[in-house]
Amino acid sequence: MITLQLDRTSGGKPLYTQIYEQIRELIVQGIISPGERLPSKKKLSEHLKVSVKTIENAYFQLALEGYVQSKEKVGYFANDITGFYTEARSERPSYTNRFQEDHYRLDIRANKTPTDMFPLSVWARIAREVMADEGRSLLETVPFNGIPELRIAIAEYLYGFRGMKVSPDQIVIGSGTEYLYQRLARLLGEDCVFGMEDPGYTHTKRILANSKVPYRCIPTDWEGMRSDALTASDCTVAHVSPMHHFPLGTTMPVQRRVQLLTWVNQKPGRYLIEDDYNSEYLYQGNPVPTLYSLDVRQKVIYINTFSKTLAPSLRLAYMVLPDELMDRYVETTTFYSCTVASSLQHQLARFISEGHFERHIHRVRQHNLKQRELVADKLEASPLARSAQLLNSPSGTHFLLRLATDTPDQDIYQALLEKGILSTFVSHYCEQPTNRFDHLLIMNYSSIDAEGIDLLFNELQAVLQS
Amino acid sequence: MITLQLDRTSGGKPLYTQIYEQIRELIVQGIISPGERLPSKKKLSEHLKVSVKTIENAYFQLALEGYVQSKEKVGYFANDITGFYTEARSERPSYTNRFQEDHYRLDIRANKTPTDMFPLSVWARIAREVMADEGRSLLETVPFNGIPELRIAIAEYLYGFRGMKVSPDQIVIGSGTEYLYQRLARLLGEDCVFGMEDPGYTHTKRILANSKVPYRCIPTDWEGMRSDALTASDCTVAHVSPMHHFPLGTTMPVQRRVQLLTWVNQKPGRYLIEDDYNSEYLYQGNPVPTLYSLDVRQKVIYINTFSKTLAPSLRLAYMVLPDELMDRYVETTTFYSCTVASSLQHQLARFISEGHFERHIHRVRQHNLKQRELVADKLEASPLARSAQLLNSPSGTHFLLRLATDTPDQDIYQALLEKGILSTFVSHYCEQPTNRFDHLLIMNYSSIDAEGIDLLFNELQAVLQS
Repeated sequence: MITLQLDRTSGGKPLYTQIYEQIRELIVQGIISPGERLPSKKKLSEHLKVSVKTIENAYFQLALEGYVQSKEKVGYFANDITGFYTEARSERPSYTNRFQEDHYRLDIRANKTPTDMFPLSVWARIAREVMADEGRSLLETVPFNGIPELRIAIAEYLYGFRGMKVSPDQIVIGSGTEYLYQRLARLLGEDCVFGMEDPGYTHTKRILANSKVPYRCIPTDWEGMRSDALTASDCTVAHVSPMHHFPLGTTMPVQRRVQLLTWVNQKPGRYLIEDDYNSEYLYQGNPVPTLYSLDVRQKVIYINTFSKTLAPSLRLAYMVLPDELMDRYVETTTFYSCTVASSLQHQLARFISEGHFERHIHRVRQHNLKQRELVADKLEASPLARSAQLLNSPSGTHFLLRLATDTPDQDIYQALLEKGILSTFVSHYCEQPTNRFDHLLIMNYSSIDAEGIDLLFNELQAVLQS
Repeated sequence: MITLQLDRTSGGKPLYTQIYEQIRELIVQGIISPGERLPSKKKLSEHLKVSVKTIENAYFQLALEGYVQSKEKVGYFANDITGFYTEARSERPSYTNRFQEDHYRLDIRANKTPTDMFPLSVWARIAREVMADEGRSLLETVPFNGIPELRIAIAEYLYGFRGMKVSPDQIVIGSGTEYLYQRLARLLGEDCVFGMEDPGYTHTKRILANSKVPYRCIPTDWEGMRSDALTASDCTVAHVSPMHHFPLGTTMPVQRRVQLLTWVNQKPGRYLIEDDYNSEYLYQGNPVPTLYSLDVRQKVIYINTFSKTLAPSLRLAYMVLPDELMDRYVETTTFYSCTVASSLQHQLARFISEGHFERHIHRVRQHNLKQRELVADKLEASPLARSAQLLNSPSGTHFLLRLATDTPDQDIYQALLEKGILSTFVSHYCEQPTNRFDHLLIMNYSSIDAEGIDLLFNELQAVLQS
């Protein structure tokens, strides 16, 4: 009979656990050999002076984990577990929080709206109401394209503020544009080749590369993506931001829009993706009609996000698909669940429908207007004005500063970084070599204060003079 | 001088909009030719008897959209917009909500916990507290791997209930396992080939195919993925669910686990993905130690979700990466933002830390135990018992019913569907042709009521006898 040491004090492990662990150890160490029969439950219970139920529980666990095998009406037999490691993960690994983000004295690279402008108490009130009104329906599976309430609210918003005629049936909700681009890349098929603005938003290119989607850099000038270069390429899809180009900050004139629409209609299967990012922040005049609205042949995919306008932590974006693509989405992609929690979708739907989104945009726009004036005034009053010119952009949340210097952008970037200032230049967003966009510093102004502006201008002046 | 018709009644559009629209129309129709100079602002304002500011606003909008070009101190000139469509998207497309899901009299395919078991008032209270305590910090960008509070709560939970030694540094939060598999597939590199259980969860295979990741179907028996077949394949990564296999419902014995660990250690670059889905629901004995815990060489990636245990609408899952892969993730993948909203992460972190998750799991387990007994009792009392045998599974949320019949599964499926019952068979989850798993009906029992069980058993009996 096998020998086991049982700790019968009240603080010890349950008896069945002790029996299970000790028999397991005997099997692992080969003291009970493969194929050897274990004592019957009754005999072992008498031997150890415990109940049969206790032995039963121990044997059940051994069988569940596969150390022993039960043969009905015969007994339990040890399995062959050759190769079992007797080493063990020794300690619990400690938590060092080792992937922390860097901190800077000043960050003019980040495009952030000050968080104190967000109507948090309104959102909190809406969150409570959603919980009370929707109750357990919040637990149900979300439709693949998002909840109807949010898609309706977005369609109404697009009609009211962008003049876009969109059915909620055409809208797909996702946790950020990053996610939607991944779905879109697959939806557009094996043979699609993306044309990307160069200079342009680097992030989207990284997403495409990571999703194994081929793309070409299409030269882009101050009027937007060059349609001649696009026509000369093998691209089937062009990704553009007509309302507000990043980083150039310009709006695409109607002639260029017409050229892009001509391109898209020249061959079947072509599409335009209109990234309407930052279209909400226009400081003079009315929003320029979208490509989507100019397009009568359903060749434009419209995409936008709430991460920039509300909060980056919200993770909520949407795309508007032409009917044909939506049909293809339903055929091929609905096995992907919607990635946004139901409660959040309800909260945002009410936030938009009750007019809070519009009011928030208005407040931020007023704030940004003041920021723009502050930056312009401070530059005028600074000696830096002799070597830096502010390029006016009608929209967005950043200025370009054209620097009169021969110092390479990377050297200025490095010198500023040594002073604790994180910056970027338009040249950082150029993938193909060019010097057409040198010496253009990108200055996000939405969350910079007077002190920050002074710091930047003083350090920049020092760098340019050295 | 151009002729414009202005509506000066109070209900009309602003005058500058009318002027802008009418001049735009003249340019689009070619009545104002490309290159033609517009009247000076002063002259037109006198002619139309409106202020110069009104003309200025109209001209600004025309220039912003690119219909005209402003030449400083000379004037405004019409641009060439050849090719502009004069058609327009006629009507707002109507909302038909055309992608609705089907409804059935009875759905035994869906693995759903009854929503009335979820402690919604606790969650609502926590949501309020999170909003009050965290305030504006909820608006800040979420770290790429999720908020520390949630990663710490998950690490503590895994230690307490799965005996797993995990650092919060190793955890990555994402909006569902679907999303995490996509990141993982890229992380494991160009040359990785996935080995997938066959039969097995079809959904994960579709995600891989859609993400352009090659995979092989590895024959799987009642003990789990066959390690001999895995060894004979060219796979570099094996995806297994040792605690609870779907759809077979079995637990992998230790010998098979050891074989898989031997396989993973035979060549560098190999990994095991342990999908611990449904490990929470074990009805007898203690949870079987994870592959992650048996693995001492950091070759196991652990993945689990809260969608099944809490609510599908929550969209929250996580993976535990070995240090080496986590380092690679930080190098290559952090440009992807975390896809889960900050507020949700805080809510779940507190829900786990305060013990509500554990209590909820306990309640559902008790509920499922009763459901299991109800199904077993009803089968015993039914004439169906003569042609259907219940295969006991120690865990999960479904039974297998082995049907004594020669009728093909698909015919039974179709006959049940015609009665309004949505079902699936194990054979539906077999990718490679085999008849080893025929006549095994999958019966999710968590949310079925007595009436539903009677309906199923009666209709099934009728189908088998016809």
